[in-house]
Amino acid sequence: MEIKKYKKEAEYSYTLGAFPTLELVDAMPEKVMEILVHSSFTDKELIEKKCRSAYDEGRVGRPVPIRQDDRLIEKLSDKENVYVAGIFEKYECELRSDTRHIVLVNPSNMGNLGTIIRTACGFGYYDLAIIEPAADIFNPKTVRASMGSLFRIRHRKFDSFEAYAREFCGEDITKAACDARGNDVSLAAGNDRSRALYPFMLDGSCSLKDAPKPDNERFSLIFGNEATGLPAGFAEYGCPVRIEQTEFVDSLNLTIAAGIGMYAFVR
Amino acid sequence: MEIKKYKKEAEYSYTLGAFPTLELVDAMPEKVMEILVHSSFTDKELIEKKCRSAYDEGRVGRPVPIRQDDRLIEKLSDKENVYVAGIFEKYECELRSDTRHIVLVNPSNMGNLGTIIRTACGFGYYDLAIIEPAADIFNPKTVRASMGSLFRIRHRKFDSFEAYAREFCGEDITKAACDARGNDVSLAAGNDRSRALYPFMLDGSCSLKDAPKPDNERFSLIFGNEATGLPAGFAEYGCPVRIEQTEFVDSLNLTIAAGIGMYAFVR
Repeated sequence: MEIKKYKKEAEYSYTLGAFPTLELVDAMPEKVMEILVHSSFTDKELIEKKCRSAYDEGRVGRPVPIRQDDRLIEKLSDKENVYVAGIFEKYECELRSDTRHIVLVNPSNMGNLGTIIRTACGFGYYDLAIIEPAADIFNPKTVRASMGSLFRIRHRKFDSFEAYAREFCGEDITKAACDARGNDVSLAAGNDRSRALYPFMLDGSCSLKDAPKPDNERFSLIFGNEATGLPAGFAEYGCPVRIEQTEFVDSLNLTIAAGIGMYAFVR
Repeated sequence: MEIKKYKKEAEYSYTLGAFPTLELVDAMPEKVMEILVHSSFTDKELIEKKCRSAYDEGRVGRPVPIRQDDRLIEKLSDKENVYVAGIFEKYECELRSDTRHIVLVNPSNMGNLGTIIRTACGFGYYDLAIIEPAADIFNPKTVRASMGSLFRIRHRKFDSFEAYAREFCGEDITKAACDARGNDVSLAAGNDRSRALYPFMLDGSCSLKDAPKPDNERFSLIFGNEATGLPAGFAEYGCPVRIEQTEFVDSLNLTIAAGIGMYAFVR
């Protein structure tokens, strides 16, 4: 099969650079179609070792193929000094229902999406719901910005927030229901089909510092689009959170807001 | 004077886009040489009003000139749908000694530098020390990533961290001195020439959560280069802080780490 430059419709994508490629082989060897190395690549032994151990450990049925192809690497990477790449099959994931989630509503920038995935992985958020339309999670730019963390998490696309909520949040996701519970968010996770929702909004009714933190893992941090944030209707869901800031900025960058939110809820 | 595309050596730079340009006129009208508008710009009245009020309030000695020049805007912006720009003289600042500081050691990426400035401004850190070599703070890319927050803060370049410390930290900046104070960082600011230092390092001895927070404004959060972090020697300064993270990421993105650090110390 001839490998071409990435297209959204393609059934494969690729990592560019050593770090994401090592992460791919480490986390998802079964999805690797082949590893490409450049004749100038100096760390070939390490990638060979990773490929071999995935086979030795029985995680893949055949050794991961490694091939030298300078021209193809240059083509895929627009000649940006990339010396190793990993071609992989795209895949779908199921999210777990008993873990904390990140929900991104219409993220539009691939670099931001990748950076948020990297941060999520760093803070132990391994389940990501993406509400479409959204940036392409398998675009090599997203993969690269994630530094390969993409292969450590579960992610799934939904047509709407409601579709996500129907599956993971049970019935009571409105602010009214949350208030009725006396803002005791721990109750939101009282049965298997409910979880505490925290939409991050500039005018959220609760400051991040004071927001009641859940005492279990069934909660979701929800972030909106870079330019527009979350639609106003999200103020009706769960406990809307604002990150207090000075009057001198319009808003924080999405990746920063998400990073701070994730950090604050891990504590 | 003919305005040319930005060069580091030039004595002027420019904002691209409405938001940063409005911030420039609002915060530093005295530095504006002229405002350029494109014939397609739809919000000319707002910028005219800002320019006029800076004059009416006596902040500038003459009305800020506004000129329509489609070709020049297109040249400065590489034709990226920019409809307004503000040409400004570069300037130097003094840092205040009685405020919290951000210290960036060798930041190399202009987008990151601008994003950190935007976050700093959002959390009320208005004094920024930059240890050279470093990305150019006046490059239009930095200005744009800052969303114009650059004009709200004081910033100054230093040849070395030691040069910064000599001027703002008094004598006792070592970890030994910090330990001798029983880790009571509030004592670090016991006289006008001392301040508590918090270098952020992957192997910092204190987790961010547990790091003793200062009870006054004389403290500095210190962040290293994107690829290399802070040199190991910074473990000897003040209270080295690590942001706890899973084994699955190499490190957090610099802008995210800085954002989380700033947030945690504002609380």
